Amino acid sequence: MQQISLSDIEVAQEMADAAREVILPFFRKPDLETSNKLTDGFDPVTVADRAAEQAMRAVLARHRPDDGIFGEEYGQVEGLSGRTWVLDPIDGTRGFISGTPTWGVLIALSTQDGPVMGVIDQPYIGERFIGSADTAEVSGPTGTQPLKTRATETLDQAVLFTTFPEVGTSEERAGFESVAQHVRLTRYGMDCYAYALLAAGQVDLVIECGLNAYDIQAPIAVIEAAGGIVTDWQGGPAHQGGRVLAAANADLHAKALAILHDV
Amino acid sequence: MQQISLSDIEVAQEMADAAREVILPFFRKPDLETSNKLTDGFDPVTVADRAAEQAMRAVLARHRPDDGIFGEEYGQVEGLSGRTWVLDPIDGTRGFISGTPTWGVLIALSTQDGPVMGVIDQPYIGERFIGSADTAEVSGPTGTQPLKTRATETLDQAVLFTTFPEVGTSEERAGFESVAQHVRLTRYGMDCYAYALLAAGQVDLVIECGLNAYDIQAPIAVIEAAGGIVTDWQGGPAHQGGRVLAAANADLHAKALAILHDV
Repeated sequence: MQQISLSDIEVAQEMADAAREVILPFFRKPDLETSNKLTDGFDPVTVADRAAEQAMRAVLARHRPDDGIFGEEYGQVEGLSGRTWVLDPIDGTRGFISGTPTWGVLIALSTQDGPVMGVIDQPYIGERFIGSADTAEVSGPTGTQPLKTRATETLDQAVLFTTFPEVGTSEERAGFESVAQHVRLTRYGMDCYAYALLAAGQVDLVIECGLNAYDIQAPIAVIEAAGGIVTDWQGGPAHQGGRVLAAANADLHAKALAILHDV
Repeated sequence: MQQISLSDIEVAQEMADAAREVILPFFRKPDLETSNKLTDGFDPVTVADRAAEQAMRAVLARHRPDDGIFGEEYGQVEGLSGRTWVLDPIDGTRGFISGTPTWGVLIALSTQDGPVMGVIDQPYIGERFIGSADTAEVSGPTGTQPLKTRATETLDQAVLFTTFPEVGTSEERAGFESVAQHVRLTRYGMDCYAYALLAAGQVDLVIECGLNAYDIQAPIAVIEAAGGIVTDWQGGPAHQGGRVLAAANADLHAKALAILHDV
């Protein structure tokens, strides 16, 4: 029996609150317990990661028992409603274990066509970016402001963020660099926070590769709500992950895509 | 006539408070006024940068009129005391104009032998790292904690931060990469916040180049107070800037220096 007293955004807020409470006691603590999921790379899973996903799933069990769940840590639960909550409890674990406030709790609500609502939450700063058909706003240390992407029209005016050179094949890195050489400023290392900054009108482009669906669905919803565009490097849907191009507006997206789609 | 009611740390706190108040209204605002100081690179100076240095100089005029001042924006004022306050009102302007919480207000108190007290303040997060002969602590969203660097002994266990590849000559970048290839994890783009994280025991090494004295004196004081070591790439003093190696402890410093000093 589904409780209908909370809106989807209220459910997402309760999930993000629950994740914050679980994660923060682990952040910047010495001897954080980690384990390597991949033998060929550095992708630690922390105790906090798992506990936060459990806390979010508990909120969904109370308020949205008919919806499906797809989480980074505990996989897929089919639902009855046709809707799926897509969860990455700590996106940016490399940032998390380094103490940087660039990781985030990612929560998306999706249909088969892609995400319709998203939350990017940064618990240490106490900052939450929310996007849906009705809402595009950030709340944080300086209050609540609307999210609106920039009108930057040309690559030579654009600020580009990326997780290169930490990830990607040499071919993908060459693709990224073929755009980077045209922009005003390229910066690195921001994890999912880069997408939040694009939605907030602070930067113009994010180019990444090797993403999973749970890494990108919340950013897509937040950026689209703020007026931006997210696709893969061919201009197709990005909500299954892979190579991602996020842009502040259609003009800028077209200019970056014209370079990237030859990769 | 010098007022002696405030300690040096209290004066620095008042300066950091004054800078925060001036800077925050400019952070993440649209159409931030910027200008290029360098014709060959991207180094914007914001209105906030200049106003914050003026606000900090006003605090010093009240409480430490006999001390000298060396600031990024308004240069050198000789003092009578043999002590100099070294100020960088917004270190990490590329981060500032991109909306990232990685820039900081840097305040150092120095003698001719180098910095004896330092503050790294991140106004948006509301986080302040302080180091002196008597004090090593951070205050922020989760309260106040002591600063203590890590005991990581080997490069293959170390986490390294840098502003490469954004800065440096190809020779300097090769030097950085010769260390980076030995470490567990290399991350990018943290500006002065990387030094704060080293002091807080979150990361193990920071390698940079092209620094000015006002970029590094506050980090030196904070890191040394927390148990770490900061030198140039030859093992000499770093407080005049240039190429910098910061390490969590002497063992790790020696191992990185053994690679870097051949550059």
